[in-house]
Amino acid sequence: MRPSGRQPDELRRIALTCHYTKHAEGSVLVEFGDTRVICTASVEERVPPFLKGKGSGWITAEYGMLPRSTHERMNREATKGRQGGRTMEIQRLIGRSLRAALDLEALGERTVTIDCDVIQADGGTRTASITGGFVALSLAVRHLLQQKRLKANPIHGQIASVSVGIYKGIPVLDLDYQEDCEAETDMNVVMNDAGAYVEVQGTAEGHAFRRSELNAMLDLAGHGIDQLLLRQRDALENGGCP
Amino acid sequence: MRPSGRQPDELRRIALTCHYTKHAEGSVLVEFGDTRVICTASVEERVPPFLKGKGSGWITAEYGMLPRSTHERMNREATKGRQGGRTMEIQRLIGRSLRAALDLEALGERTVTIDCDVIQADGGTRTASITGGFVALSLAVRHLLQQKRLKANPIHGQIASVSVGIYKGIPVLDLDYQEDCEAETDMNVVMNDAGAYVEVQGTAEGHAFRRSELNAMLDLAGHGIDQLLLRQRDALENGGCP
Amino acid sequence: MRPSGRQPDELRRIALTCHYTKHAEGSVLVEFGDTRVICTASVEERVPPFLKGKGSGWITAEYGMLPRSTHERMNREATKGRQGGRTMEIQRLIGRSLRAALDLEALGERTVTIDCDVIQADGGTRTASITGGFVALSLAVRHLLQQKRLKANPIHGQIASVSVGIYKGIPVLDLDYQEDCEAETDMNVVMNDAGAYVEVQGTAEGHAFRRSELNAMLDLAGHGIDQLLLRQRDALENGGCP
Amino acid sequence: MRPSGRQPDELRRIALTCHYTKHAEGSVLVEFGDTRVICTASVEERVPPFLKGKGSGWITAEYGMLPRSTHERMNREATKGRQGGRTMEIQRLIGRSLRAALDLEALGERTVTIDCDVIQADGGTRTASITGGFVALSLAVRHLLQQKRLKANPIHGQIASVSVGIYKGIPVLDLDYQEDCEAETDMNVVMNDAGAYVEVQGTAEGHAFRRSELNAMLDLAGHGIDQLLLRQRDALENGGCP
Amino acid sequence: MRPSGRQPDELRRIALTCHYTKHAEGSVLVEFGDTRVICTASVEERVPPFLKGKGSGWITAEYGMLPRSTHERMNREATKGRQGGRTMEIQRLIGRSLRAALDLEALGERTVTIDCDVIQADGGTRTASITGGFVALSLAVRHLLQQKRLKANPIHGQIASVSVGIYKGIPVLDLDYQEDCEAETDMNVVMNDAGAYVEVQGTAEGHAFRRSELNAMLDLAGHGIDQLLLRQRDALENGGCP
Amino acid sequence: MRPSGRQPDELRRIALTCHYTKHAEGSVLVEFGDTRVICTASVEERVPPFLKGKGSGWITAEYGMLPRSTHERMNREATKGRQGGRTMEIQRLIGRSLRAALDLEALGERTVTIDCDVIQADGGTRTASITGGFVALSLAVRHLLQQKRLKANPIHGQIASVSVGIYKGIPVLDLDYQEDCEAETDMNVVMNDAGAYVEVQGTAEGHAFRRSELNAMLDLAGHGIDQLLLRQRDALENGGCP
Repeated sequence: MRPSGRQPDELRRIALTCHYTKHAEGSVLVEFGDTRVICTASVEERVPPFLKGKGSGWITAEYGMLPRSTHERMNREATKGRQGGRTMEIQRLIGRSLRAALDLEALGERTVTIDCDVIQADGGTRTASITGGFVALSLAVRHLLQQKRLKANPIHGQIASVSVGIYKGIPVLDLDYQEDCEAETDMNVVMNDAGAYVEVQGTAEGHAFRRSELNAMLDLAGHGIDQLLLRQRDALENGGCP
Repeated sequence: MRPSGRQPDELRRIALTCHYTKHAEGSVLVEFGDTRVICTASVEERVPPFLKGKGSGWITAEYGMLPRSTHERMNREATKGRQGGRTMEIQRLIGRSLRAALDLEALGERTVTIDCDVIQADGGTRTASITGGFVALSLAVRHLLQQKRLKANPIHGQIASVSVGIYKGIPVLDLDYQEDCEAETDMNVVMNDAGAYVEVQGTAEGHAFRRSELNAMLDLAGHGIDQLLLRQRDALENGGCP
Repeated sequence: MRPSGRQPDELRRIALTCHYTKHAEGSVLVEFGDTRVICTASVEERVPPFLKGKGSGWITAEYGMLPRSTHERMNREATKGRQGGRTMEIQRLIGRSLRAALDLEALGERTVTIDCDVIQADGGTRTASITGGFVALSLAVRHLLQQKRLKANPIHGQIASVSVGIYKGIPVLDLDYQEDCEAETDMNVVMNDAGAYVEVQGTAEGHAFRRSELNAMLDLAGHGIDQLLLRQRDALENGGCP
Repeated sequence: MRPSGRQPDELRRIALTCHYTKHAEGSVLVEFGDTRVICTASVEERVPPFLKGKGSGWITAEYGMLPRSTHERMNREATKGRQGGRTMEIQRLIGRSLRAALDLEALGERTVTIDCDVIQADGGTRTASITGGFVALSLAVRHLLQQKRLKANPIHGQIASVSVGIYKGIPVLDLDYQEDCEAETDMNVVMNDAGAYVEVQGTAEGHAFRRSELNAMLDLAGHGIDQLLLRQRDALENGGCP
Repeated sequence: MRPSGRQPDELRRIALTCHYTKHAEGSVLVEFGDTRVICTASVEERVPPFLKGKGSGWITAEYGMLPRSTHERMNREATKGRQGGRTMEIQRLIGRSLRAALDLEALGERTVTIDCDVIQADGGTRTASITGGFVALSLAVRHLLQQKRLKANPIHGQIASVSVGIYKGIPVLDLDYQEDCEAETDMNVVMNDAGAYVEVQGTAEGHAFRRSELNAMLDLAGHGIDQLLLRQRDALENGGCP
Repeated sequence: MRPSGRQPDELRRIALTCHYTKHAEGSVLVEFGDTRVICTASVEERVPPFLKGKGSGWITAEYGMLPRSTHERMNREATKGRQGGRTMEIQRLIGRSLRAALDLEALGERTVTIDCDVIQADGGTRTASITGGFVALSLAVRHLLQQKRLKANPIHGQIASVSVGIYKGIPVLDLDYQEDCEAETDMNVVMNDAGAYVEVQGTAEGHAFRRSELNAMLDLAGHGIDQLLLRQRDALENGGCP
């Protein structure tokens, strides 16, 4: 019934390629099916003005799409002279989600910027960005630990994200672009490895959704995130992240 | 226990003053306690380029805060030369929420712009904007009906919004600024008069929230929105909205 | 003969509602007939770079119009990404006028920003802003005196402003929007309570004006400003400004 | 008594060099002492959107200063990404003043843009721009008449401008930069050749000015403008403007 | 002697991976050693205003770098609100170079936009962009031919580009980042397959270069471009471009 | 054969008028035929952030065109809110070229900004800007030496620039606008007084150029630059630059 032939509770092929680029302290190519996002984590030994002298670090995120990552070419935001509302909304979401993964004081007075650049878009770019961004952040922290710039690991939990929705009346997991366009409801869920929610953002596209539908979507999301957390650990601990 | 002395499930004083300004097709001053927002609905006989010739109307929203609507003076966005991410996120939310209230094709090829300008902020400006914005939209549609520019009412449902959160471990309804600053979780809920969800946006500020907490917050939101829907009807139907 | 039925030398209904919003050090809603402007005075303990270390304070003004304060909805300047020439011209005029009201050295190294936001426009928004801005500034100075952050009152004079013009060949006082559109000449006059001029800005819209017409307009302006100064004192000294 | 040794009612050396650049339909270098401004008039066969199809032409002005036209180098507005308030105020003044010189309907559906670029600034750049701008406009109209693109001359009056002020207590004509910095009052006056006022903009810099001072300044301005009108005619009619 | 151990006339490893992304009409990943650029060619059935109705097509290029494609993270141009001078210079160079490859009239009234996005930078991003951009353009033209939207191939020549420079006194080919930083002279050469020059841009970084050095660099460039042209043909004709 | 009747190796009339404006430390009006550019050199006792505390000075350039310096009026970049790519490319070229003229360390921690403003354009504005900019820079350095703010002259060589091209198949020197529009190849060459190259920028406009054509153009450029260097020395040493 799904365009891709997947089961309602089936994720797309998930791939996390660590060390995808060489300059960043942490970098990963994350793929959710045909959605491909380069996530890099860059460490700078300074904090934004509002945190100066407060003994706390900062995690921030930026998000961008290559102009032809999409079906139709989009204008480049650098050319338009401003980031659009969707871009800002997504990068604020990624930043908030990843800040929930670690103890900012334990990070020390430094900033880690997570850049999520979409090479190819096929739905779910923000959930892929959060899931990949966590891996890039972990690699950067590992780098700081190896360099002895950090004594203890400030990361206290794992964060992953997936989308769920109501497609042709049925709750489905990890929507691709085609499903996303036709879905009546679209929800992005960010959870930690303790099974608690960091963000829940549900939007009725066509008709408003009932409490029972909300519950069914949350069940699916929990199921998907369990698998994503596993893939992250595999990538970080074994050769899965070569 | 709440700074204001309210019960956990108690709304602030809600007031809707219709026809607050004279030029707009619909206008209302909405007050959620000390939060005061002017909502105006402006009708223009044209649609944005992506809708031209498609027989559909459009609802869009813009949001702004007066520089000294807040504790500390904020810089004016017009001076900074760009709207911030928070502003864009809020105006996108208001627009999506109000589009769920009516049949865009029945509106005809015209645009209604809902401007929500915060005169005084004390928490909950986006939920007040949606709740007041619905009333302004309804007044503008009533104006179009009276002028016979519309034959039938395109509004097919009522929309209201309220915030809920976990404050000192307890789920509470309609957070004011002081509660909002200290809340561990903050959720904005938009519902219609059929009891279904249009938007659910929950964010863990301090610690991630559990499924049971999510459920308690949704119960509170439903309770608050029932009262807001009543206030809207009262304002629109009786002298409540003079 | 005037659309409103007023006499040529008759002001509109003038109202000054002090403490209109709660966060600002000084705030007032000023009404010149249907023209309504919120004026707030915000105190910050710093001066712009060009005054640093010079022992002088600063008064600056910003001006904005709500998008639907006017007959037709205007685009929001924050959306356009820049303030228009008219806005800049007006806020420069308000700032210069109010700086003439006080001794900047006696203010100390702090900045008072006067925000004038037009809620509803019906002609004369700049003169209302200056007249109301003076009251907001006075309230903020009173607040600083009460807090003992100032030892002596730096305000050495009162400032008010009114428009005059030639409407259908006759000099008239305090033009509303309809008169303003049709006026052959429009002049904004700012005076102090010693009867001297702080600003005189006269513009021929249709035909150039003669010296005798200029004199007649200045007479009317003096007459109107006398009344406005009275209303300001009443608002500040008695319960007129509750 | 004046730094330049001039009499209170004495203009600086005035020079108008016509056809200063070769591409523009009208161009002139105007000099008020050391203040030097290139004024060009460019004709385009279209009108701004708000005038389309209304059978009327348009005159608009733009104003700029070379970065090192001033004592200290200023940042280039093109680099800063926006025109400042002073620039906007001045170009609006020039445009309004020159529109008073001609019948816009008789101009036909075309736009004349007057560019005033300050090569060297020594006070009075806006009055020099208006005075020179009128000559550039006249040359462009003469060009249109010669090309038979216009049948009749739409210019119905002559426009010139000069500054006056109170310098060390004495009313003086045509202030240079040094006087301008120290003047207690500064007034720019635009008049036509019928002796009527197009713009009067007086600003108290130090202390507010009395009615008698205003009158003395207006007398001086009329005296100066008479001479400027003569210089314009000389430039346009005789070889003065080679 | 070269940091990489290469011979003075030796290119880095060159790779061209065709169809690197799925949405664009033409796409390629080009690698010059560690420099990696995604080039996409997007076809749109319209031309810029200056070409409307002239029977000619257009090729334009845009260039961007991912924020962490470089050693230190750069600020995102979309965040800064403007493209820098270097970016503009490079994208103008790419556009001019590729327009020399084909007959714009034979392309018909359509625009091909070449987006060159640097994933990883190690010197020579502009020469890699031109070399890869030609392949992306060729793939897009092939797509148009296959879809019968073009009857004949408008490409009349092959275009490739390489950098040359004087490094430690010796002319070298295809500089990597380390060489580029220390080079006394840096030259980018764009040539066609007839051995003629499309662009020659030589810059003395340290000391000015003599005619004999210029000649030696041009010889090296010709040698390198011959190999690049071969690699392009291989990629387009054989499985080299899978 | 050339539209101007010049020989292929003939420069236009070259004029350098020193001290053209009075405020700048160095200023010159440079004329290459009808191309007229005001070059000013402004000295500031600070360096950009990247040079702070490094004991080195800086030379930077900015370039602008008056809106009606050209055949058709161009929009003002300050109005558009950004400098175009061509402007940025040219000012980067001027800055790089002039930095090659002097020892930045010997300049001390100060910045010289060269502003090149085109009053009238007729081809070759960038080469005139470099040639005139060198004279303005020399005058500013002379000023610093006279004021004893510099002990020794940091200028170690002379820099001039000229354009060459292939016009109707024949290599020509110093193209005017008409030739520039029709030229098949356009090359800008910057050289020092030791006969070495600082910049070589050749662009095929119509057909790619061969090595022999490149050589012929370089010969012409060398010939022209010899004369320009002579004119610069004459202007700086004799009364040529009054």
